[in-house]
This record gives sequence, C-alpha cells and structure tokens, in this order.
Amino acid sequence: MKDRAIGIFDSGVGGLTVFKEIKRLLPEEDIIYLGDTARVPYGIRSKETVTRYSIENTEFLLSRGIKLLVIACNTASSLSLEEIRSRTSVPVVGVIEPGAKAAVKSTRNKKIGIIGTEATVRSMAYPETIKSMDNTVQVFSKACPLFVPLVEEGWFTGEVARLVAETYLGELKDKGIDTLILGCTHYPLLKGVISDVMGKSITLVDSAQETAKIVKDKLEELNLKNNSVKASYTFYVTDSPERFIKVGEKFLGEKIDNIEKITLMEVLR
Amino acid sequence: MKDRAIGIFDSGVGGLTVFKEIKRLLPEEDIIYLGDTARVPYGIRSKETVTRYSIENTEFLLSRGIKLLVIACNTASSLSLEEIRSRTSVPVVGVIEPGAKAAVKSTRNKKIGIIGTEATVRSMAYPETIKSMDNTVQVFSKACPLFVPLVEEGWFTGEVARLVAETYLGELKDKGIDTLILGCTHYPLLKGVISDVMGKSITLVDSAQETAKIVKDKLEELNLKNNSVKASYTFYVTDSPERFIKVGEKFLGEKIDNIEKITLMEVLR
Repeated sequence: MKDRAIGIFDSGVGGLTVFKEIKRLLPEEDIIYLGDTARVPYGIRSKETVTRYSIENTEFLLSRGIKLLVIACNTASSLSLEEIRSRTSVPVVGVIEPGAKAAVKSTRNKKIGIIGTEATVRSMAYPETIKSMDNTVQVFSKACPLFVPLVEEGWFTGEVARLVAETYLGELKDKGIDTLILGCTHYPLLKGVISDVMGKSITLVDSAQETAKIVKDKLEELNLKNNSVKASYTFYVTDSPERFIKVGEKFLGEKIDNIEKITLMEVLR
Repeated sequence: MKDRAIGIFDSGVGGLTVFKEIKRLLPEEDIIYLGDTARVPYGIRSKETVTRYSIENTEFLLSRGIKLLVIACNTASSLSLEEIRSRTSVPVVGVIEPGAKAAVKSTRNKKIGIIGTEATVRSMAYPETIKSMDNTVQVFSKACPLFVPLVEEGWFTGEVARLVAETYLGELKDKGIDTLILGCTHYPLLKGVISDVMGKSITLVDSAQETAKIVKDKLEELNLKNNSVKASYTFYVTDSPERFIKVGEKFLGEKIDNIEKITLMEVLR
C-alpha cells in the first residue's frame, strides 16, 4: 500500500500548483495527475454536472490503485467533496479546508475575502467552513469568471490583467478585509496583479501549500508514507496534451513528460 | 418530412445568433436547438475531441427526427463538418462557407481578416474556403480566446472589452484589411467595440444571416419547407438551464422557455 501513488485531479492545469507543493514536501511519493481538459472549465457548471465529472475522475484514479486522493480544484472540492468521500475508501483531501484554516489563522480584523469561480462562490463552501472554525469572522465573496481565461491566455501581468482585477476587486477592497483567499488554483499566477490592486498590507492565502501539509499529515497518521528513493510522476489528460503541456510548464516551471490522453467514457464503461 | 424540425447545435449560447436569423427568415419552421453547455467552450479543444462532441450532438438531434442540421458553431464547423456530413443522410449546413462567401463578395482590396477561437484559426478552414473561391485574396487570421469569456461575462462594452479588442486587433489593422469575418457566433455581441477599434470603414461579416439564407435555399431546393401556421421552438442543454437562459436571453432579446436538460451519454448509450 505504501508504494502506491497519490492521485490528484483538477479540471485542467490549475491543480498543478497543488501538485508542485506536494512534490516539494513529499519528494519520495509517486503522483498520478489527471487534468480533465476535455471538459474544463468547471467553474461555470452546475453542481450536478461537476459532481458527475468528479466521480468519473475519481473512478479513473481509483482504477490506477492510488492510496490517497487530492481534489486539487476549488470548484470540485466545493461541490462534490462529500459525495466523493462517501464513494471511496481511500482518504480524500480537498482544497477548501486548508485554505480556510490558513485564512482564519492569518486574519487580525476578522474580515476575510474570497475570490473564486461562479460555482465556488455560489456553493458557499468557504464561508460555511470559515464560520465553523470561527463564527465571529465576516466573510466577503466575489466571483471572478475572467481570471481563469486570463491565466489560460498567459496574460498574468499587463494592462488587461490589471484592469480586470481592479473591476472585480474594488468592492472587496472597500470592505476592509485584511486577508484574501485565492479560491481557485489558477489564481496564484495572478498574485502579482492581485497584490498590487489590493495593497501590500493584505495577506493572500494560496491553498496549495496548506493542502500539501495536510496530505503529509494524513500519510504519516495512516502510516502510508513511501520509502522509495526515486518518485515517478504520471500525467493524464482527457483532451490532446499539447495545450496542457504548454500552459502547464508555465505553471510548474519545469518540463512535463510521461503524459497520456485518455477518454474517460471508454476507460470507465 | 416537411413538418419535421430544423436541428441546430452549438457548444453553448453562441449559436442563438444563427437561431435568431433562421427564425426571422423562416417563421413557419420548427426548430430544435441543442447547446452543449456541459462541455463549452469548444474553441480550446482538439479536433478529435470537438469531432466526438459534434457526433454526439448530431446523433441526439437525429434521434429527434430533424430534416436538416445546422452546425451553428465556427469551431465545430471548422473541425467536423465533413465527418458529420459523411455520417448523416439529412443535409448539413455549417457557418464557415456562408461567412467566407459574404466576405469575398464584400472585399474591394482583396484583404480579408478573420477572428475566431484558437481551434478555428488553427484549422485554416476560413483561409482554405476563401482561397477556393478567389485565390487572389490575402487572408489574415487572429485567435481571440478572451472574447468568448468576455461575452459570457456580459462585458459587451466598457474599458475591459475595448482594451482586449485593441490588444488582439492591432496587428489585423496594420495589415490594411477592408473586411473582417466575425468567425465565432459569440462575436456579434462585441460588434460595437470591434467596429470602434477597427474603424468604420471596415466591413464586419456576421455569418448568422448568410447561414440562414442558405438554410432557406436548401429547404426550397429539396422541397422541404414547412407550411404550418405556428412554429414551435425547443431548447436542450447538457448542463442546468439557468446560465443558458440568463445569457441566452441577452443574445435573443426575448424569453427562452420550453428548455430541458439532457445527459448525452445517457441518451445515446
């Protein structure tokens, strides 16, 4: 069991920010990453559809014999974590709780902002999780649908990115928050612009690092840590790999090889 | 046969611009519209994946007994028109040829620009179609990936839309084109901004009207025109209808009812 891989899925390349942190913190662990690029983005879809996609992704990774599952997508974590947990016997880690915990720890004035996709914001997953940790905290949410396409286009900086960020973030600034959760795995790539617009005094919470820590704790707790000397990394995508490799290498800052295209319908049925 | 419906599919709401023109030109025809909202957008996907989705959409509409199929999506028309034609016995109309024909007719200086999704531009469908009509025409293409999310966000005008348009269209302006094909069914909603940036002397070609004319010609030629007094309109989507209705009503400028969510996998297998 210990030598099995950690499975990670995301709607596309965004979850690579989580992959990167897990790889850094747990260099001896094999990782299988699934990017559902044939159906990205999840953030504009309904709970029912995102849950169906999450179940299919999970079934695929389970068929690969993983020992732990990470849902490295805020939308999928918000909408389908409970459903996925109820269907699998391996531990499942989402990205909401780690980010919420870090934000509650960071805030001084008890005002936390959250930015994410339409579906993540609509789900209320962050406010509910934060309130369950500290119900004196005020939470302000804002959906930023153009941020994902901006990142996918590679426009991390520049005039358009700044103007879009100003348009979305103005009302959160006015609320006087001191902590802002980047509630989408794509957003860390816009950190510079977001920080410029919000001001340097605002703490930005990126859940990737927090999630990696929880994965490490879970493996230790369950005595599932690998002792191998060399880890292997395998990537699967549901559309042709070219685009994933191009954008993904920008995310990771390193080469992506060992990648294969799969068709979930054919694999699972 | 005559009283059967015209079937239209698109990846989402964009094809409603084509629906609207067909409805206006052929008010006696029943129309069944399928928006594949669970898998929108198509423009960032591979030929193989878009073709698979197009086949599934077509099979669904054929199962509803349509008499003619319209692929109201530039990406799907560019990548899968031939494949779809080879698989069905009903006439199939795409949006590329009508737009290309109108542009060739319009240009005076034989310089035509095309804007579309990444997949449409990469396919070379427009340049090849135009060259086959008049090989003295020079064609300049530019992919504008942020235009679809801008429209979906409802930012048809304003500073962000203008800045994005300026960023994409600068190089086309420098080429001295006199005609620009809006090679994506979403783009007519950005017509104002695009026209402002390109200048009033540039003719913008919107293929929806041209496509509707060809549908009318085809029905007359094949003696398939309906003589009913009152037409019916049915909409199917593959994700929950709320978002389609919200954005779609902006497209159509009228109410959308008679809409149902379907799951293609379950319907077809």
